[in-house]
Amino acid sequence: MKFELLATDGAARAGRLTTAHGVVDTPIFMPVGTHATVKALGPDDLRAAGAQIVLANTYHLFLRPGHDVVKELGGLHRFMGWDGAILTDSGGFQVFSLSKLRKITEAGAEFRSAVDGSAHFLSPEIAVEVQQALGADIVHPLDECLAYPATREATERSLALTLRWAARSKAAHAAGAAGQAMFGIVQGGTDEALRSQAARATVDLGFDGYAIGGMAVGEPKPLMYDLTALVAGLLPANQPRYLMGVGKPEDLVASVARGVDMFDCVLPTRNARNGQAFTADGPLTLKQARYAKDAAPLDAECACYACRGFSRAYLRHLFMSSELLAYRLLTLHNVTFFLRLVRDMRAAIAAGGFGPFQARFLARYAVSSVDVSRD
Amino acid sequence: MKFELLATDGAARAGRLTTAHGVVDTPIFMPVGTHATVKALGPDDLRAAGAQIVLANTYHLFLRPGHDVVKELGGLHRFMGWDGAILTDSGGFQVFSLSKLRKITEAGAEFRSAVDGSAHFLSPEIAVEVQQALGADIVHPLDECLAYPATREATERSLALTLRWAARSKAAHAAGAAGQAMFGIVQGGTDEALRSQAARATVDLGFDGYAIGGMAVGEPKPLMYDLTALVAGLLPANQPRYLMGVGKPEDLVASVARGVDMFDCVLPTRNARNGQAFTADGPLTLKQARYAKDAAPLDAECACYACRGFSRAYLRHLFMSSELLAYRLLTLHNVTFFLRLVRDMRAAIAAGGFGPFQARFLARYAVSSVDVSRD
Repeated sequence: MKFELLATDGAARAGRLTTAHGVVDTPIFMPVGTHATVKALGPDDLRAAGAQIVLANTYHLFLRPGHDVVKELGGLHRFMGWDGAILTDSGGFQVFSLSKLRKITEAGAEFRSAVDGSAHFLSPEIAVEVQQALGADIVHPLDECLAYPATREATERSLALTLRWAARSKAAHAAGAAGQAMFGIVQGGTDEALRSQAARATVDLGFDGYAIGGMAVGEPKPLMYDLTALVAGLLPANQPRYLMGVGKPEDLVASVARGVDMFDCVLPTRNARNGQAFTADGPLTLKQARYAKDAAPLDAECACYACRGFSRAYLRHLFMSSELLAYRLLTLHNVTFFLRLVRDMRAAIAAGGFGPFQARFLARYAVSSVDVSRD
Repeated sequence: MKFELLATDGAARAGRLTTAHGVVDTPIFMPVGTHATVKALGPDDLRAAGAQIVLANTYHLFLRPGHDVVKELGGLHRFMGWDGAILTDSGGFQVFSLSKLRKITEAGAEFRSAVDGSAHFLSPEIAVEVQQALGADIVHPLDECLAYPATREATERSLALTLRWAARSKAAHAAGAAGQAMFGIVQGGTDEALRSQAARATVDLGFDGYAIGGMAVGEPKPLMYDLTALVAGLLPANQPRYLMGVGKPEDLVASVARGVDMFDCVLPTRNARNGQAFTADGPLTLKQARYAKDAAPLDAECACYACRGFSRAYLRHLFMSSELLAYRLLTLHNVTFFLRLVRDMRAAIAAGGFGPFQARFLARYAVSSVDVSRD
């Protein structure tokens, strides 16, 4: 994997990541393909939306269908019919999300499957082995994702464990030699000193890129932005930076302004299934009665199939009738919107106009107070 | 609308129906788009599957979003983004399916909405008005679909009502002059004399084509085939014949052999959502464990996107994980299979080889005993 930094504008960066499965232009948004499928979309839809890389979840594929099955069927790219790049997380965040169903020890994480209650164990070495079997282009070390808020003592203890696991993961990864890139994950909670320490220690271990983890877990937004800027400033300029699990369109813009290159989030896909469409004017909640006879497309500026072919009234009708096509079309639109947003940011950075772009975006984009994030 | 009979082979016919929305090559299968969408497919998928005409349900669109809304948004073709031909039923079969929620009088059918319990009324004139607002290429008169079994007396009474409603529907249709074709519906239950009488009386009223209704409602399969042959033999040779709500692949072959040109059925779409894929060797039930590591496509002879891009193992994984993409890909495959079947029959008829085709089909196609028809 090769990363080239092509342009900067303040802290914002435009780059190019070259993988065995194609080029990824950064900043980039990675649609989330939890079970080896971006919910409601086919690979044809993903290509049409402009996707270059998708994320798949190690934890979910470990449980179902099993990494051995995926490997036997030719690896994740072939299994899911996606010839673009793939990034897998390490399973740390999902294990963390299980709360009472998990137990963390020095050796690794014991947990019970949310699918069938069966007992499982993920160590740093097993997480690497699973990701090597899946065959993603970019993999991650097993980390512990800390709950917010946490005491300084708990944060220190957790960070130390994550760093020991990172070293073990790196060793296992090197031994496997599967031609995959591995990103380090910077944890450290919300304490600036510990975040700085985490960044430096992770860089010292040496990875192909760096993820910023443990964000968007409940901390205030300004704190997330500040910590992102702090960590990004401590990472090597010539390697990619990935802010895990973020976020809303306004978060992407704010984080690119702070030096982030890569993002993933379930927001465009999950909210699509709950009837919310993203537009340059802000999110649109389709169940509202005012769209019942609206002949306009979701977003007049969007070239996606949903916007070219159908009215808000029709899409609302599909959504209100729980028709499966609603989920595909709304997801296609939202993923297209997120990918257009990162492409527009990239063009603004290359032209040296990221500041004005950000101002125009914020002046127009109305943050929604409607919460459709249930799933 | 123009119908040309291009070739016959025994009772089997190959024809061409020319509508304002393109040519329909017969025999043809019409995917069912109940709520102005063929479940799980976009118009792009329908085109890729080879669809030339789809069915939409007057009853469902009357209730939601309402024919007035569809009309205001430019009619059904524009509303659902489908520029091929559309056929609407009259709502008679759906009202019949409501059983205890309906009351039939000379004036029409009173019923309660399955959506919200509200009271509604469909008369022959209203059913025509609704279909004119929807703007389908082919419409139908309101009919009474009789339950099986029924006494001769009940059948006579019901048939007489259907014929009086057919005359009223035809008059309303002529007055509306919306440039739509109207097919008459032949009812008459399972009594051969009454079916013959129904066919002759409906032809005497004079329509652009003829539907055979009230079939596949519980009567034995041989009886359905015999009645179909009887009615088809009494219909004008130079007009299209449509067997409503039929059926399984083997039923399509048997009915084409008896002179039918057009079919609709929820089977390929509904069974897809329940994990059943149709192949030339018979239906395949994807949840079976033997497909868990099967690298083969659903059907090696199929050129659909599901078969070109994905293994049975992956499709099974999607289905077992309740992933939305499973429904799209399986539906796309099944609709492609049904449309290939009618295309193959058409070619066999044109070549004068329908008999051998039918023998080959039956020798290979293993009828499934697995019932996945729950919905």
